[in-house]
Amino acid sequence: MTQSPITPLSYEQAGVQYDLIDPLKVAAQRAAAATGEHLAARGFAEVAASRGESAYVVDVGPFYVASIVECLGSKALVADEMQRLTGRSDYAGIAQDTIAMAVNDLITVGATPLVVQAYWAAGGSEWFADTERAQALVAGWKAACDHCRVAWGGGETPALAGIVEAGRIDLAASCTGLVNPKERLSLGERLEPGDAIVLLASSGIHANGLSLARKLAERLPQGYLTEIAPGLGYGQALLAPTTLYSPVTEALWARDIRVHYAANITGHGWRKLLRHPKPLAYRIHTVPPVPPVLRFIAEQAGHDAAEAYGTLNMGAGFALFVAAADAERTVAVARECGVEAWVAGAVEAGDKRLVIEPLGVEYGGASLALR
Amino acid sequence: MTQSPITPLSYEQAGVQYDLIDPLKVAAQRAAAATGEHLAARGFAEVAASRGESAYVVDVGPFYVASIVECLGSKALVADEMQRLTGRSDYAGIAQDTIAMAVNDLITVGATPLVVQAYWAAGGSEWFADTERAQALVAGWKAACDHCRVAWGGGETPALAGIVEAGRIDLAASCTGLVNPKERLSLGERLEPGDAIVLLASSGIHANGLSLARKLAERLPQGYLTEIAPGLGYGQALLAPTTLYSPVTEALWARDIRVHYAANITGHGWRKLLRHPKPLAYRIHTVPPVPPVLRFIAEQAGHDAAEAYGTLNMGAGFALFVAAADAERTVAVARECGVEAWVAGAVEAGDKRLVIEPLGVEYGGASLALR
Repeated sequence: MTQSPITPLSYEQAGVQYDLIDPLKVAAQRAAAATGEHLAARGFAEVAASRGESAYVVDVGPFYVASIVECLGSKALVADEMQRLTGRSDYAGIAQDTIAMAVNDLITVGATPLVVQAYWAAGGSEWFADTERAQALVAGWKAACDHCRVAWGGGETPALAGIVEAGRIDLAASCTGLVNPKERLSLGERLEPGDAIVLLASSGIHANGLSLARKLAERLPQGYLTEIAPGLGYGQALLAPTTLYSPVTEALWARDIRVHYAANITGHGWRKLLRHPKPLAYRIHTVPPVPPVLRFIAEQAGHDAAEAYGTLNMGAGFALFVAAADAERTVAVARECGVEAWVAGAVEAGDKRLVIEPLGVEYGGASLALR
Repeated sequence: MTQSPITPLSYEQAGVQYDLIDPLKVAAQRAAAATGEHLAARGFAEVAASRGESAYVVDVGPFYVASIVECLGSKALVADEMQRLTGRSDYAGIAQDTIAMAVNDLITVGATPLVVQAYWAAGGSEWFADTERAQALVAGWKAACDHCRVAWGGGETPALAGIVEAGRIDLAASCTGLVNPKERLSLGERLEPGDAIVLLASSGIHANGLSLARKLAERLPQGYLTEIAPGLGYGQALLAPTTLYSPVTEALWARDIRVHYAANITGHGWRKLLRHPKPLAYRIHTVPPVPPVLRFIAEQAGHDAAEAYGTLNMGAGFALFVAAADAERTVAVARECGVEAWVAGAVEAGDKRLVIEPLGVEYGGASLALR
């Protein structure tokens, strides 16, 4: 049944029910926290402040080791549908998306990504028989590793008939890195009032909000082939690969710019700026241009600015918190890396909240409950 | 359609078509190998001998970092069916199986596992609504981490409707560890004629060969409830959790026993003993007792000894190659850790092959093509 495009559609209505997942997450987080003590038996120690952050950090003496596993999510379903419609495989971009999910999280703690492992679980052996698609996945994976200068260590390519749906693939990446030297650790100890907020441009939806985006496609008479800007189809725009931000964080360190804190803007959109537990306010004075695909989604879903910026990245894929004196240089370094950036706001003392002044939007500290 | 139980059933007939997967694997391995050079830009280096081994190893100076991601495979489908039949959830054991897949591989290179990350991709949010099952997964995951004294760093719990089948879960684990001190590295440089082969007992099928095991269940009139030994049902026996071997490798190092090489006996069964590229022969004089469930599977599938030992672990879940003088002490240390062990054979000069003398079985060097 085709619904009117102006019927509002929330993220929860699009099929992800966090209330069912969250009790498990809480139980898992509590159980996981109790295992940190095992590191002491090895002569090492957990960096407790990394619990609840985007990557887990262990102090092994000369440096910190950071690790993570991340799932692509449902973006591959868009690539599958676009391949059906156009005959072309976008799995090179899907590979980059998957690596970005892991690398962009890992670097938030100040780590240099060293090794990526591939997790490609197909619905059956026959997934790999589409040679063009399989080779695109391999080529895109390697290209993303090259871009981040990370070693592709290996991985798993199981055929999981009965678990993964026939014709589908469940993609994930694990990443291990080092915080080296240790003063690169950016878990927010140095985050303070007066810091500048630098936003790095996204390439589009990245790999979060796809459940919503796919649901909207079902409503559109032309589906993924709907033109959302001259010459730009909806499906094509959705498949813009996620920007890889590790070249920027590496370049910043090389230029002696210390990142106080970093937030990967994924699920929950700009509410991720509230991630750090410190009671601080974040005031945004400059909002990046919104990619056409995100403007289109927000319009079609009937989102107001608060819902749109609280769900999608709206043009900002990564946030860096740096000393005010480093803000303009941070922007310049990002641009040298080919990533557009803006000095977008500042950290202030006060109750925890995010104020996006140009939009008249404010999120309270309780609007992001990740811990 | 129920087939006669004596109709032979090979692993390939059970649904895993390696010929479709292998070209992709080869392409991926080639692409991955080309990325190792990126480590040099960070001042580090790949340990080239770890390519093709069970975990990827990087030299970061004071020690080696090893990392891996591993998939459980289809064993969760057996737990799902048993829960339907008995009302009880075996997901605590399934959690241990998943961690074992990663940890038992990681330790082959001489690494101490430090951090495990959980990858739990469900077919939908509702998977997590079965509280007993979800809590069993959490409790089993923590218990396995405690047993291996590894920190549970975090993980991902995506709901992947449209990719993972409704009511199912795709389980994987990533693991990061250190080879510390560096002389613990056990990539086989010291493997030589005269070394003893010590086999560590498996608890049953572990998590390899489940496609075959599930296919056989379809043939049995009583299915998973078939009694395979007095009081022991087929499904129950299949769900015995995989033995975790890291306490043994840690204890060996603590007792100054140097492991020359190690092989996790998973897919391809005992052919994994042929894993190292050196041209060496492996002669087995003592074969461990076969767990009832593996004896049953081999009989039902019509496997002769060569096919059974070339597919399943047949009672030996892990192989340690040590100096002959250390062999008996290795067995004693394993037993102190609660793992039965046997001095099972020796490494010899000669063409690459594995001879299992008590069974009259021989595998040539070409029978395991992993690289």
